[in-house]
Amino acid sequence: MSPVRRLLVRDLASVVSPARTRAPLRGVALREAEVIERAFVLCEEGRIAALGPMDALGAIAGEVEEVDGRGLSAIPGLVDCHTHACFAGDRVHEFALRAAGASYEELHAAGGGILATVRATRAAGEEGLAAALERHRRWMLQAGTTTFEAKSGYGLDRDTELAQLRAVARAGGVPTWLGAHAVPPEHADADAYLDFLLAEVLPEAASLAEAADVFLERGAFDVAQARRYLEACREAGLALRLHGDQFTEAGAVPLAVELGARSVDHLEVTGASGVALLAASDVTAVLLPASALFLGRPMPPARALVDAGAAVALATDFNPGSAFCESLPLVMSLACTQLRLTPEEALAACTVNAAHVLGRADRKGRIARGYDADLVLLAAEDWRHVAYHLAGPVVETVIRGGEVAWSRSA
Amino acid sequence: MSPVRRLLVRDLASVVSPARTRAPLRGVALREAEVIERAFVLCEEGRIAALGPMDALGAIAGEVEEVDGRGLSAIPGLVDCHTHACFAGDRVHEFALRAAGASYEELHAAGGGILATVRATRAAGEEGLAAALERHRRWMLQAGTTTFEAKSGYGLDRDTELAQLRAVARAGGVPTWLGAHAVPPEHADADAYLDFLLAEVLPEAASLAEAADVFLERGAFDVAQARRYLEACREAGLALRLHGDQFTEAGAVPLAVELGARSVDHLEVTGASGVALLAASDVTAVLLPASALFLGRPMPPARALVDAGAAVALATDFNPGSAFCESLPLVMSLACTQLRLTPEEALAACTVNAAHVLGRADRKGRIARGYDADLVLLAAEDWRHVAYHLAGPVVETVIRGGEVAWSRSA
Repeated sequence: MSPVRRLLVRDLASVVSPARTRAPLRGVALREAEVIERAFVLCEEGRIAALGPMDALGAIAGEVEEVDGRGLSAIPGLVDCHTHACFAGDRVHEFALRAAGASYEELHAAGGGILATVRATRAAGEEGLAAALERHRRWMLQAGTTTFEAKSGYGLDRDTELAQLRAVARAGGVPTWLGAHAVPPEHADADAYLDFLLAEVLPEAASLAEAADVFLERGAFDVAQARRYLEACREAGLALRLHGDQFTEAGAVPLAVELGARSVDHLEVTGASGVALLAASDVTAVLLPASALFLGRPMPPARALVDAGAAVALATDFNPGSAFCESLPLVMSLACTQLRLTPEEALAACTVNAAHVLGRADRKGRIARGYDADLVLLAAEDWRHVAYHLAGPVVETVIRGGEVAWSRSA
Repeated sequence: MSPVRRLLVRDLASVVSPARTRAPLRGVALREAEVIERAFVLCEEGRIAALGPMDALGAIAGEVEEVDGRGLSAIPGLVDCHTHACFAGDRVHEFALRAAGASYEELHAAGGGILATVRATRAAGEEGLAAALERHRRWMLQAGTTTFEAKSGYGLDRDTELAQLRAVARAGGVPTWLGAHAVPPEHADADAYLDFLLAEVLPEAASLAEAADVFLERGAFDVAQARRYLEACREAGLALRLHGDQFTEAGAVPLAVELGARSVDHLEVTGASGVALLAASDVTAVLLPASALFLGRPMPPARALVDAGAAVALATDFNPGSAFCESLPLVMSLACTQLRLTPEEALAACTVNAAHVLGRADRKGRIARGYDADLVLLAAEDWRHVAYHLAGPVVETVIRGGEVAWSRSA
């Protein structure tokens, strides 16, 4: 019998976790983080076995590895519920063109944009793709992300779409099938491409992915096409998500509510009726402020959504074109400075609510007994430095499944 | 005789430096970076002795330490020409209040703001202050900053102002005397405080600092007060700088031009006439987009300034209240996404032009023979990742004075 794997993080200045309300958190529950000062967290077999103030720490039988938490604070491992991290190459050239004045849609129309990454990703081969994803996963881990979702959508052919989903699963991520990301040049139009996707790719994609996603936008897929794609995916057992209201209000929010989607993501241009619709629904609004910043676009109406009672999550949108950014701490900084969310709201939005979007809120996104032992130790006694220290070296140590997965000083 | 200290950085994917035009760079010269591909840089006795393509690298006599530059690109060590890095404590509590809706000016009026940091800095003692500055200096170094300016202005009494200037000099920074930052409570009003500053602090401050700075703003110092302070400082041999047009156009730009100041900094609300005045002057416009982001304020008119022919520099404004951010790479990202500067313009603005503001453009801010051997090695073959990889781990190794001062993998 192998010994019990135990890790004790002791003498933490504070341990902070979202309110113990049922996920997804909404309204005032979003800002009611629970704080324990001078605290410990005991991990056992990858789960959190106990936590509390140091003076409640009793004797521990058997061997235990210790981490000195003095001067540090602990928050739940961050959950990035919207990334496109499985890509090859980069688009730094487009970044420079955009800085010099070109718009995202102009670049896309000129043959850049998503299809440029599709070419690089198809050319990378499965091993090249896995190597790129591993590099991106390491970046995410160093930024405190212990659970990540990643979408396909840079293959747009059968083999590469499936290769993306396999690569994400092998890297420990949550795979989302985004076959309907863009129409590749070998298909006549969006409808013909959907015929192909649903007949040739969906059957196997459904066995690899947990959810399906679609880019509902002018120039990509319209409401009727998105409905057709998503209904077929739901039929095949996938949870549903949508990219919506990034550039135009093209009907993503009503469709998300109609279909009972897990989430609708982006929402930079969502107006009052969309906000009201989401607030009255079970659909989580996933906001991506790093993407809005990167493109110089308006920020999503986060304050209005929260105040109306919508469930809100935050994510990076990490991708090579519109958000070359894997940092949820940066997203939290933007949430507090651009979206007018409080640090507590930002924390809940990229932990427990993000875990809810991924169907994992029962074991991810909180520091609580029985949850997965995923923790971020921050290099500050006040955990709010994670948002306050803009682009700073605030993540000190990352614990995943009860083991130290990365440490700045290592 | 001790051996010659030599460091060879070899096999770099590229070496990039601003155009070899006389500093400060303006107009098209700002976007004309010089790039050498497959390159080396040889450092000798703290200076750059040679650089060029690898096939021009001859035999090197004597001992030489080597750094493997494969997969990396090199840019000049970054120069942060506007920081308030010499402070104790933090203001994370205010950050949270502001996220919940309070304005910067409201927090200041309520006894928070600058005076909160003054209390912490006075209480820290000279050793405590030095320790805090050392921590901040390490953060800056890890972000690629090899030369930094830091201001006093959190003492506002004789002993603490002078202690700040000494601490900055001892930490290797460029000290700026910002006695006229705010009026401390022990003085009746701004005029009485200036009487004190000029009689009791200036004589010794002038021997410790290189420049003087003033916060010309509603609620701080007006034009007449700023003129009085700056003229006395100029008389005492200090270069002149101003905080201006952050919240209101209160006359800082005309005063800067009138007095021949090195720089006027902030400019978030500068209008067309201020832009024209700066473009026709020798005053450098120092832009601080991280501060504008942090406060949710408008961005300065960078594009208009550059297009009009003004000399523009970028800096962090690193301070605990309005920009808890020491990262010039983040500032470059904001420059490209929010200020519509190209990566080349952003690079020149926080290297050679920033060095000009600090009176060091003859030896800092370029990778060129005879310049100080300050280099940042970036973890990407294309140097533009420094701006493109938003808040990412892009700084791989920092070389200062011909020695490796920090390395991610060390």
